[in-house]
Amino acid sequence: MNKVQVDYTDAMKLTTEVIGSYGALLVANNRAGRPNVMTIGWATYGIIWGKPMMLVLVRPSRHTYKFIEEADSFTVNLPPPDMADVATYCGTVSGRDADKFKEKNLTPVPGKQVSASYIDECVVHFECRIAHKNHVLPQLLDPEINKGCYPNGDYHVIYYGEILGCYKSEDYEL
Amino acid sequence: MNKVQVDYTDAMKLTTEVIGSYGALLVANNRAGRPNVMTIGWATYGIIWGKPMMLVLVRPSRHTYKFIEEADSFTVNLPPPDMADVATYCGTVSGRDADKFKEKNLTPVPGKQVSASYIDECVVHFECRIAHKNHVLPQLLDPEINKGCYPNGDYHVIYYGEILGCYKSEDYEL
Repeated sequence: MNKVQVDYTDAMKLTTEVIGSYGALLVANNRAGRPNVMTIGWATYGIIWGKPMMLVLVRPSRHTYKFIEEADSFTVNLPPPDMADVATYCGTVSGRDADKFKEKNLTPVPGKQVSASYIDECVVHFECRIAHKNHVLPQLLDPEINKGCYPNGDYHVIYYGEILGCYKSEDYEL
Repeated sequence: MNKVQVDYTDAMKLTTEVIGSYGALLVANNRAGRPNVMTIGWATYGIIWGKPMMLVLVRPSRHTYKFIEEADSFTVNLPPPDMADVATYCGTVSGRDADKFKEKNLTPVPGKQVSASYIDECVVHFECRIAHKNHVLPQLLDPEINKGCYPNGDYHVIYYGEILGCYKSEDYEL
């Protein structure tokens, strides 16, 4: 699929709709270049340090964590509604147990700006260079959120990715 | 000015344009209820913990820091282009030295959902309940950003505000 660059701010509303419903696909490649994909329902985007930035959260217990810890970049990919089941699958099954790309016929393609792969079948993707990471701090977190989201104390690491490019499939109307 | 609620995702593009140019106005009230305003050029927005969330960054050296540290909420206010000079002023002058509301004829109004004040003259504002805070960690930050943004080691605190409401002036077209 031919991909064309778009203004990342034009994709913000759609991104929020997708992560707020069936979820977006986060891809990070390990040191050997092998991509891993997981579904994310949480992310923020905007400007930090004068740069367009996308923040994603990964729990250390996730298979993806090992990959993103070895990576200098990640991509966030928006599946169209008819791929909602793929998002559900990629959020349920771990890359430890299955080759999710193969199982769901997803095509990883090397990023145009980063080494992380993007997913060709997705209609929009962001390519992000990791500029920072920090952590959800239980002692400074709303107690209700802490109780609801972290019963096992598996606090997220937050990755700050500089958005180096945002692309859409040529025939997709943003 | 009468304010009407809007979907926060409809204000994301404008918010990015405003913070990326002359800047938005961050308001936090201290324990006594007194509001302080500063201009911000950095923020992100999206979903975390299943909630709409806006992240803002404040350096501990800022006058606003004392206010937001005493607060349970903040507002982010978008001035229209003809108030760009107000944003410049509020980003240059400290609340230690001047009453910025008075100097620039800004009207602080108690939030509809939070105790923080919003600025009546702004065309859009977000009302956010502080759910978390953490910190920019120099040892995990891109060295170039570290050098460029933190020559004095004055690392930002990042406040995570749950967006409880997003409003626009009734006669303003988003």
